[in-house]
Amino acid sequence: MKNHIEPIARLIGAFQKLPGVGQKTAQRYALKVVNMSDAEVKEFAECLVNVKNKVKYCSVCGNFTESDPCDLCKTRNGKTICVVKDPKDVLSIERIRDFDGVYHVLHGVLNPMEGIGPNDIRIKELVSRVGANDVQEVIVATNPDVEGEATAMYIAKLLKPLGVKVTRIAQGISIGSDLEYADEVTLSRAIEDRREL
Amino acid sequence: MKNHIEPIARLIGAFQKLPGVGQKTAQRYALKVVNMSDAEVKEFAECLVNVKNKVKYCSVCGNFTESDPCDLCKTRNGKTICVVKDPKDVLSIERIRDFDGVYHVLHGVLNPMEGIGPNDIRIKELVSRVGANDVQEVIVATNPDVEGEATAMYIAKLLKPLGVKVTRIAQGISIGSDLEYADEVTLSRAIEDRREL
Repeated sequence: MKNHIEPIARLIGAFQKLPGVGQKTAQRYALKVVNMSDAEVKEFAECLVNVKNKVKYCSVCGNFTESDPCDLCKTRNGKTICVVKDPKDVLSIERIRDFDGVYHVLHGVLNPMEGIGPNDIRIKELVSRVGANDVQEVIVATNPDVEGEATAMYIAKLLKPLGVKVTRIAQGISIGSDLEYADEVTLSRAIEDRREL
Repeated sequence: MKNHIEPIARLIGAFQKLPGVGQKTAQRYALKVVNMSDAEVKEFAECLVNVKNKVKYCSVCGNFTESDPCDLCKTRNGKTICVVKDPKDVLSIERIRDFDGVYHVLHGVLNPMEGIGPNDIRIKELVSRVGANDVQEVIVATNPDVEGEATAMYIAKLLKPLGVKVTRIAQGISIGSDLEYADEVTLSRAIEDRREL
C-alpha cells in the first residue's frame, strides 16, 4: 500500500517494528496519531525517549529499573528468589500480590537448537547471588515447555550443592478450565502430581 | 497490573491510546521499546512529532498532505471525483492503481443517531467544488452500510441539479468468495444488479 505522505509512511514503518504489528494495524495507529492533539503526541514521543534514557537493568536481579539496585531488590525479603525468563514474567507474578521475595531474570532460557547456552543467560549471576547471600529457597518459574523445563533442571543441578532448596512452580489443570479441553501431557502431569485432600 | 517503573508505566499508558490496544498489548509494545536501540527509539519519537508537525489537511480534497493543495489534487485528472469517508479509504483505493481521478474526503458520514448532519462533514465543500470546476463524474465510495448509503443518496440529490453524473460503487458478492457464505442482503443486491454477459 503506497502512502503519498512521507511522514505518515515513516511512522507506519516505525509502528511495524512493534511485535505483531503489520501494515494495516500500523496504518490504523498512524492515522490515530494524526488525529491526536499536539500535547498527546508530544507526551507519547517523550514517553518513548524517557523509557530508553531512564530505564536500565538492575545489576542484582536483571529486571528493568530506574535506580540500581531496583526497588524490589532493596525492599523485599531476599530469602526467596523467584527465577523467571523475562521481565514481563515479573509483572505477571507481581499481579498476584502474593509473592514477597525477590526475582532473578534470566533474559532467556537454555535452547541448544538456537545456540543459547548457560553463558548466554544470567545463570552465573544466579549461582554467585545464591552463594553470597542467605538464600533459603529458589523458585524456578520458567515456562512449562521443553526449554523452560531443561533450564529448571540445569539450575536445580547447579544450586542443590549450595544447600539451597530449589522448587518448581506446579503444573496441572488451570483453575476454572475443563478437563475435556486439557491436553494429554498436562492431564497426565496433573494426575502424577496429585495431592491428598 | 502494577508496573513499578514509572517511565514504562507511562509508555504503556501512551500505547493504550492507540485503537484496539489494551493493557497486555501495550505492555508488550513497551517492553519491545526497552529492547530497541537508542537510534530506533529516537527515530520512532521523531516520526511521531514529525507527523503532527508536517501533516495537515488538503484544503481542496480534505486528505492528509504535506503541501497544500496535495500532490493528488495538483497532478491528477480533476474530471472525476471519488468521494470517501476517511483518508484511509483513499489509501485503499490508491492500492488498486486503477483510479486516476481526484478524491474528496468527507471526514465522516451522515449519522442522525449520533447527531452528525450535513454541516458536520465536508459536503458543502464538495458541492462548491463541483460547481466551480469542470467535473464530469462524482463516484460515491462511502461504505455500503446504512449511513454510507444515506450519505450517498443525499450527495446525489444535491449534485444532480448541477448536471454532473453521480455514480455509486457496485455492491455484490466479493471476488473469490463463496455464495454459501454471502449474507442475504448482499446476495439479493447481487441478483438485483445483475449484468448481461
